[in-house]
Amino acid sequence: MSGDTPPEGPRQLRKGRAKASDPAALAEFALRPDPADPRLTERVAGVDQDGRAVETAVVVERPLTLFLNGQEIVTMMTIGDYPDYLAVGYLLNQNMLHPEDVIESIDVDEELEVVVVRTERQTNYEEKLKKKVRTSGCAQGTVFGDLMEKFETVKLPAEAVLKTSWLVTLSKKINSVPSLYLEAGAIHGCVLCEGDRPLLYMEDVGRHNAVDKIAGYMLLHGIGPEDKIFYTTGRLTSEMVIKTVQMGIPILVSRSGFTAWGVELAKQAGLTLVGRAKGKRFVALAGAERLVFDHDPEALEDEDPRHQRKSGRADDAA
Amino acid sequence: MSGDTPPEGPRQLRKGRAKASDPAALAEFALRPDPADPRLTERVAGVDQDGRAVETAVVVERPLTLFLNGQEIVTMMTIGDYPDYLAVGYLLNQNMLHPEDVIESIDVDEELEVVVVRTERQTNYEEKLKKKVRTSGCAQGTVFGDLMEKFETVKLPAEAVLKTSWLVTLSKKINSVPSLYLEAGAIHGCVLCEGDRPLLYMEDVGRHNAVDKIAGYMLLHGIGPEDKIFYTTGRLTSEMVIKTVQMGIPILVSRSGFTAWGVELAKQAGLTLVGRAKGKRFVALAGAERLVFDHDPEALEDEDPRHQRKSGRADDAA
Repeated sequence: MSGDTPPEGPRQLRKGRAKASDPAALAEFALRPDPADPRLTERVAGVDQDGRAVETAVVVERPLTLFLNGQEIVTMMTIGDYPDYLAVGYLLNQNMLHPEDVIESIDVDEELEVVVVRTERQTNYEEKLKKKVRTSGCAQGTVFGDLMEKFETVKLPAEAVLKTSWLVTLSKKINSVPSLYLEAGAIHGCVLCEGDRPLLYMEDVGRHNAVDKIAGYMLLHGIGPEDKIFYTTGRLTSEMVIKTVQMGIPILVSRSGFTAWGVELAKQAGLTLVGRAKGKRFVALAGAERLVFDHDPEALEDEDPRHQRKSGRADDAA
Repeated sequence: MSGDTPPEGPRQLRKGRAKASDPAALAEFALRPDPADPRLTERVAGVDQDGRAVETAVVVERPLTLFLNGQEIVTMMTIGDYPDYLAVGYLLNQNMLHPEDVIESIDVDEELEVVVVRTERQTNYEEKLKKKVRTSGCAQGTVFGDLMEKFETVKLPAEAVLKTSWLVTLSKKINSVPSLYLEAGAIHGCVLCEGDRPLLYMEDVGRHNAVDKIAGYMLLHGIGPEDKIFYTTGRLTSEMVIKTVQMGIPILVSRSGFTAWGVELAKQAGLTLVGRAKGKRFVALAGAERLVFDHDPEALEDEDPRHQRKSGRADDAA
């Protein structure tokens, strides 16, 4: 698996502060999964329930070790499509990189499975790396201490709205666009949206990676969070709420359910938290004041089966 | 949330080596979720798609900090039902506790949200704690280095078998017994099985916790792994395969999908890996030689909808 080149060819290293660009310039699905990329799935031979030989696609999972200015931070298991966005987003969401930091270089060595981020500011997170919190993910969850340090200072924009008609449209668009999920299952998706338009759709074996890749893209391309909606296929846990709030995004939507602490933190931060969102159905457990009920409750159908996450693989990303 | 007493009352601290008991003594569902436990779910008020007030159950998620002989190891987010099994299983699966270790005490302080495991052997895992690998879970995934150190030495029993008729029965039993999943969603389940009998059913907000709680129970009650089947609602990632192999269990079954590295490691270790198991359907991508096709392919129906994981919440544990 080493020695591969990134899916869209080596991206130019960005030197200097991320500059603000016009968010309106982002096309629908400006970034989306590439299920045709041969390096993201493998075909594996097996047998089915009747002993017949079958061949099936499975997603890859490969290590990527992240260094910040000479300090080894963490080794991540990822599909490996956007190591630069993943690295920057991870550091940002861990408060090891600040939005105002000047990034001097991001070097990806595909063979060594290493990504190195260099900043103008000297960094040393030895103390921080000692503090570990295991989160509620479905694998070994750990965040380094101080994830809350930024959380409490964030002020989410009150004027942002979520029209209920958008939820139906977003769900339909996201779940019908080609994806690794539809190709191979066993993967999480996160989507940055604006109104009823999905802008950035990232997938990864770890949901945390999908979130971080979006955060990295937003920083490096100067995308503002104020008018955005964050859509995830995963659960609304404390970690997911903390990350969304830290990213400054006022609305978090999921097809999945809630944990009690996720709800509590969303209320504290004034985040709009919508879960169990399938077709026209949903439950909002925090920040309902941003909801605009603009759909006709009688007219709209339930989710079209063709736009559900594949029922035969409904638990696949679990 | 602090100050609670454990769901089944404080368990007696076990002193001394775990002694082998008769595995046959384990009744079906000897341990299973208690959705009626008021401390495991909370009822939260919200609004639905039509703006109507609704109240819904959500699972709790609370921190638990683990110490081993005075050294702080990790803080876990858990539902908190079995802190002692979780602590022991975590340490065991991280190779910080050896099966032959004498456990002097396990102290749970519900108010401080702390569990302390003390062993006869002096331990110091400072170096190990520095090495972090983020796994493919759906939250921040991290395992400490050397998770592979034991993996390569494990020899799984070749004589273990998996009858295809058991898969149908197990799935039916597991998905119809009362659970936090059916009550509130957004939770993972792991089940230790023998033949077509589910023995230990653990749930947790983190799948890794559910696995660790089973490992802890097995050690403390001397349950052997050789003739067991491990059933999980989560994906078959590298981490899941490594843990199952380390636990010495020869067969791993999931309703969910695979990652390529999970399949590769299962092949290396000689683990039987069955995924996308719903009703009579499944795909085996490793160790198919342990399969015994004893069901009548014509006679058996697909999974009864009543025994599926709730379709409305199919992604809930994602």
